[in-house]
Amino acid sequence: MDLGLPRGMRDIEPDDYILLQKVRDAFSETCRILGFRQMEPSPLELLSTLEAKSGAGIREEIYHFTDKGGRDVGLRFDLTVGLTRFVASRRDLSMPLKLAAFSSMWRYDEPQHGRFRWFYQWDAEIFGAQGVEADAEIIELISRVFSRLGLGDVKIQVGDRRVAEEFLRKKLGISETDAILELLRALDKASKKSEEEIVREYSGKGLDANVVRRVMDFGMIRGEADKVLSALEKEGLDTQGNLSRLLDSLKSRRIVNVDLNMGVVRGLDYYTGIVFEVYDPATPDLGALCGGGRYDSLPAAFGRPDVAATGAAGGVDRMILAIRNRGGSMGDSGVKVFVAYVAKQMAAEASKLASKLRGLGVSTELEMMGRGLRHQLEHASSTKVPYVVIVAPREFQEGKVVLKDMVSGKEETLPIDEVAARVAKTPQ
Amino acid sequence: MDLGLPRGMRDIEPDDYILLQKVRDAFSETCRILGFRQMEPSPLELLSTLEAKSGAGIREEIYHFTDKGGRDVGLRFDLTVGLTRFVASRRDLSMPLKLAAFSSMWRYDEPQHGRFRWFYQWDAEIFGAQGVEADAEIIELISRVFSRLGLGDVKIQVGDRRVAEEFLRKKLGISETDAILELLRALDKASKKSEEEIVREYSGKGLDANVVRRVMDFGMIRGEADKVLSALEKEGLDTQGNLSRLLDSLKSRRIVNVDLNMGVVRGLDYYTGIVFEVYDPATPDLGALCGGGRYDSLPAAFGRPDVAATGAAGGVDRMILAIRNRGGSMGDSGVKVFVAYVAKQMAAEASKLASKLRGLGVSTELEMMGRGLRHQLEHASSTKVPYVVIVAPREFQEGKVVLKDMVSGKEETLPIDEVAARVAKTPQ
Repeated sequence: MDLGLPRGMRDIEPDDYILLQKVRDAFSETCRILGFRQMEPSPLELLSTLEAKSGAGIREEIYHFTDKGGRDVGLRFDLTVGLTRFVASRRDLSMPLKLAAFSSMWRYDEPQHGRFRWFYQWDAEIFGAQGVEADAEIIELISRVFSRLGLGDVKIQVGDRRVAEEFLRKKLGISETDAILELLRALDKASKKSEEEIVREYSGKGLDANVVRRVMDFGMIRGEADKVLSALEKEGLDTQGNLSRLLDSLKSRRIVNVDLNMGVVRGLDYYTGIVFEVYDPATPDLGALCGGGRYDSLPAAFGRPDVAATGAAGGVDRMILAIRNRGGSMGDSGVKVFVAYVAKQMAAEASKLASKLRGLGVSTELEMMGRGLRHQLEHASSTKVPYVVIVAPREFQEGKVVLKDMVSGKEETLPIDEVAARVAKTPQ
Repeated sequence: MDLGLPRGMRDIEPDDYILLQKVRDAFSETCRILGFRQMEPSPLELLSTLEAKSGAGIREEIYHFTDKGGRDVGLRFDLTVGLTRFVASRRDLSMPLKLAAFSSMWRYDEPQHGRFRWFYQWDAEIFGAQGVEADAEIIELISRVFSRLGLGDVKIQVGDRRVAEEFLRKKLGISETDAILELLRALDKASKKSEEEIVREYSGKGLDANVVRRVMDFGMIRGEADKVLSALEKEGLDTQGNLSRLLDSLKSRRIVNVDLNMGVVRGLDYYTGIVFEVYDPATPDLGALCGGGRYDSLPAAFGRPDVAATGAAGGVDRMILAIRNRGGSMGDSGVKVFVAYVAKQMAAEASKLASKLRGLGVSTELEMMGRGLRHQLEHASSTKVPYVVIVAPREFQEGKVVLKDMVSGKEETLPIDEVAARVAKTPQ
């Protein structure tokens, strides 16, 4: 029979799953330290809920179907919609509210290399807090998660939608909302395409080529925070409202890997203030490792204009690639010791010893097949386990076993009670 | 707009999610210790794959739809099918192979109280090992997971399909496969319905009422292992093949909370040997907390009759209920300290102190709203945080802050450097 998977689907195999768990653990622990409470919103939403974020066009990009009760439903394409719908539907929650989630989601994209239709993201949101302190809190969370994963050298690129809009209105005289959104989308592409491509694309949409070029120039205002602030002030733009206060807060929090970047505005229309993306200088081709910002207009779309919102989300696959790129594979089985035995009558004693080691927290594998010693050792060797303990009749009578170091090949006979301490010494 | 969810769906809210994570952590750590490697199979399968386990009737019980490429696909209803499909499709894997998974799945049941159409399970399987040592390894995993969660007093009820079939063939003279499967299903219901109900139901299906009664009597052979083995031997049934060797292995592993129960055969047709279910004596109404057994015929259905399989799975919702029933709620926010400040000019110093505490791993909340001290304290009190640190100008000049114990109400002034040690003393 056909043992394949639907197109774009995949199994997350053990070597990748270990790293997924590593990312999950780092995220969970950071949420605990910063007081974000984790939850998981429903994986299936009414289609109308999913459309509230992104319009009816979203149908083209998601898994949706009619359920047996005749309702139009869709699998979630991110965690932000579910968390926001949850908060919007509950008037009993006290604000500000810091929520986080780590789970999988679905998108009906055309599958590409290393990109699937099912994938994991982490997501952190603060509801009901309007000031930049909340944006800073989100950025602190991100910064700590990356540091904990050995990715402390990533760069957090911060932009501000309000400054970009102010530039468009005040400096370029654009006032129509549609044109402003269109130019913000052009600005969002500044890091991904050449200026000429973008000018051509947006001239085709009826925008003045010179305007598009000036927008691209604005997007190049980026780099060290103080320099960017001076450049913006020279342009006569207001940076006191948000950006400089955010930078002060990040400084208090000792977050140093931050640049300002006017080219960062994020693609989606619903962002309303501070926005940011995180890039890994070691793997620039990977694109943004995470992104986020203030999106007060989404709760409003769910009927809660009274609830402010800011947050961030990141894909786990890209983080795994970044970790791998630094040599952090952790792809081994993690088992410390394999308990083998000579002659069947030693099987029960081997089992007892394994159980004891496991009780002490030592990752222990045990012969389950009743094979001869040679086959047991071959199997142990193929799993790359660092130690094998051999339970043999003569040594056992003296209360001893043989410990074999599988790296050096050395064997020694030692009392059973000393095995745990010896194998626990090697690093995990 | 309608902020509801599709029928049978739900959000896993923070108080439940904390316990879900507790179960996940216990499961993950036990997998590490026993050398099970975790992975996650695809959540979406070809419908034909799902039907291979349970027949076309499964369509009535699952979410399935036609994707945009015209393929019939379905959301997974358990993790066993995906893991088995993965192993069956890969001839490069070395056996025996111990795999585990912890994730969510979907069933289109009629929603009942406390039962949803989307839920989490854990799942552990051993492929390629035929003997009872592998069954014992699965039972050891289960036993350790429950112990780690404070549920060490659950009872593991072990049955054996082969003994039940031998009883039907040898003692009752049943030889037709259909009748045998029907009677095994009747036996599986022995703990859930009255004998009279079952006799009525299966007489209606053309089975002899006396035969059904004798099957029910067989199902009552249960209790302490030695007594059950004697009773089976008196009946002239073979217990040497599997059951007594399994019990020996469990004894070596110091697993003591095991009963034999001939009424346990598991509902599904694919089980082929040792089967078991776990019950919580403190919450018997909950039903089985987990179940499993040997199911060599499923890999065979995927074209791999060469691969033996044994495993277990359990629902997380029931485990959470059992933990709650023992008073293990952990429903608090977990935040240790709220850093408040007097007068805006202290905000940055409060932020620095919070950052320092977080760096030391202390779960710390920080005022984000710029409210006055009284409102900050009210908010802190509503979140049930045990400590508040107040950063005030006068004390700060002397390098000190005020630490308020929110339980006793006591306040003391102490050097900033001593805050971390003081609040870290209280248990998590």
